[in-house]
Amino acid sequence: MIPVSEAKKRIVEHCHSFKVELLPLLEANSFVIAEPVFSPIDTPPFNQSAMDGYAFSFANWDGKSPFQVSREIQAGSYSIDALKPLEAVRIFTGAALPPGSDTVVMQEKIIKYGGNITIDDAQITLGSNVRKQGSQTQKGAMALPQGQLLTPSGISFLAGIGIHTVNVFGKPTVSIIVTGKELIKAGNPITDGNVYESNSIGLTAALNQIGLAPISITIVDDDETEIQIAITEQLNSDMIIITGGVSVGDYDLVPAALEKSGVEKVFHKVKQKPGKPFYFGTHNQTLIFALPGNPAAVMTCFYEYVILAIGQFTKKEYFKSYSLPLTNDFTKKAGLTHYLKGKMSEHGVTVLEAQESYLLNSFAQADCLIEFEEEREFFKKGEFVKLRMII
Amino acid sequence: MIPVSEAKKRIVEHCHSFKVELLPLLEANSFVIAEPVFSPIDTPPFNQSAMDGYAFSFANWDGKSPFQVSREIQAGSYSIDALKPLEAVRIFTGAALPPGSDTVVMQEKIIKYGGNITIDDAQITLGSNVRKQGSQTQKGAMALPQGQLLTPSGISFLAGIGIHTVNVFGKPTVSIIVTGKELIKAGNPITDGNVYESNSIGLTAALNQIGLAPISITIVDDDETEIQIAITEQLNSDMIIITGGVSVGDYDLVPAALEKSGVEKVFHKVKQKPGKPFYFGTHNQTLIFALPGNPAAVMTCFYEYVILAIGQFTKKEYFKSYSLPLTNDFTKKAGLTHYLKGKMSEHGVTVLEAQESYLLNSFAQADCLIEFEEEREFFKKGEFVKLRMII
Repeated sequence: MIPVSEAKKRIVEHCHSFKVELLPLLEANSFVIAEPVFSPIDTPPFNQSAMDGYAFSFANWDGKSPFQVSREIQAGSYSIDALKPLEAVRIFTGAALPPGSDTVVMQEKIIKYGGNITIDDAQITLGSNVRKQGSQTQKGAMALPQGQLLTPSGISFLAGIGIHTVNVFGKPTVSIIVTGKELIKAGNPITDGNVYESNSIGLTAALNQIGLAPISITIVDDDETEIQIAITEQLNSDMIIITGGVSVGDYDLVPAALEKSGVEKVFHKVKQKPGKPFYFGTHNQTLIFALPGNPAAVMTCFYEYVILAIGQFTKKEYFKSYSLPLTNDFTKKAGLTHYLKGKMSEHGVTVLEAQESYLLNSFAQADCLIEFEEEREFFKKGEFVKLRMII
Repeated sequence: MIPVSEAKKRIVEHCHSFKVELLPLLEANSFVIAEPVFSPIDTPPFNQSAMDGYAFSFANWDGKSPFQVSREIQAGSYSIDALKPLEAVRIFTGAALPPGSDTVVMQEKIIKYGGNITIDDAQITLGSNVRKQGSQTQKGAMALPQGQLLTPSGISFLAGIGIHTVNVFGKPTVSIIVTGKELIKAGNPITDGNVYESNSIGLTAALNQIGLAPISITIVDDDETEIQIAITEQLNSDMIIITGGVSVGDYDLVPAALEKSGVEKVFHKVKQKPGKPFYFGTHNQTLIFALPGNPAAVMTCFYEYVILAIGQFTKKEYFKSYSLPLTNDFTKKAGLTHYLKGKMSEHGVTVLEAQESYLLNSFAQADCLIEFEEEREFFKKGEFVKLRMII
């Protein structure tokens, strides 16, 4: 039996693979950029007016002469005729300055008479109210670096420089195998001795929460051969999550089935509650997480361990840890790290009741998992404890 | 021109509608429950063994007599034959206790000889190692209340009591209308005077981030009639987001088009930077957000205002606010609330550079928006400022 910290360390050590995927821009939302993105264009792609006003040549102006307004340039239009000295053009926000102009005066800062204007703007200088070509990004320059998390604003930015696909660290493929003779599917009437299968649904929802979906869900009986077949069929996945049958009872057949499938055990049993019988192994590049069947243990192991491995693929940290003060005293026995369901408020974090590993009511209302360290017994109200947000 | 706080207040006041949607359980992930969920069954649905061990009748035991082990009950099996006094059954975790038994002794706490066992467990009492029928949820009792955010653990819990659909506060329908003669689509070569359209893509990504998608995207020229037609066509949506053309220039045609479409203005112009020309109006139950066309202003208005209205439909708070200390001094002019892109660290929050509203580089790297209050000018390093996480 190893401590929680050792279990996490060994999982990370065994995550060797990741994959770079070229995704359409919108599908790359919330992924991490795998290769630097270089701008294919200057942005703005031309000297652009930042205001509704008049464009003119500041260089050829004596600071007082009036201008003749010759034409109008709307955003989206382009005028190739160069301005003559003391010629100005009516221009609008976003429009390209015509050749021979370098400065824009705001429409509020002119005096207009007939087809002429004079400038009444003591602040105006060369380049006023002009967004210079390439001032945001220059063609060929790095627009976003490797390792940058792509947010909606980042996507907007890349779209604006004409990028429509991007290389990101992609998702691992995940297979779920649920074991248990007692499991029946929702929608069927409950019969004596049976319970509704919920672990595949909880795990699917948790994967969905971070943008993943299982590529397969297999529900098998407590039968070693059936379990072994199910495992073997999924060994092409990046990860397999198995629930149930991982303890040491007569019908805990998963460890034996894993061994017969050629899976190499990395560890079995962790000093934690819930989820003590948690098993982790590998088969070539495939990571196998075998979790005890109790629903609360399944969800806890997902948030503490499986997510850690997924983050090694996607180069992301999910469900960040924080420290908050406890709102109540809390006591446990020494020897196991306890993960308890918590609820955060402005006062700190409160341990929710009903913590038995088969009870999920409190988990359903929790917004975080609180970690109470292995060797300690008493935690005092007001003391800062480590927690992981899970919403 | 109204302050930020007044704009937010008026938006919330004009959000009257929401809809209750019956969704399959997995699709209800991260929605808020609209009607209390009652348990259709007891859980556990029978008295269930919590251990691998032996079930017997504690009531009929003298505390020392041996038991005869008559049969075995695996999880998923059921035995209808009532136990005789001093008869025990081999039982496994999750299995149903047979009639006439009330207690389980762990397999580690017995002495076995032939077909008999004696119990060696000083702690054992009536009901030990048994999860009583209905001890988690009772048939007909409330399993989760209205207003509960549905998490993966909540979904696992509901699946476990046999629930497979749930009534939640559903998503509003959102239409996007982007205006601007200068806009061209990604994939086309950039031509003189044109820029790539990115606002519909940034808004779509931001909607995706919270599980929504636009039901339509319309890109229209700076033409009042075209804009009016586009608006009229989308008035069946719960929300319309328009970008561009909302200021007061000759080609800012959106306010006039809105008026001709029968939209009632609630406000136009907010004391903020970026996004000063922001317009909000209604048409029957439809909410119309007309945002200035600068990409950074679009994203800022989305995270500060549009999201607020979406949350009125889904009964959720998105992108929560926090306070963190500034890592640098910051100075602005009084008169407008400034929203600046920030990056959080263990030291606090840092204002990212390049804040002009047409620049999105810094937004692409930001993880939060910092709010600098309207009336203030100087913000000191170490001072706590309000921010909204946007990742």
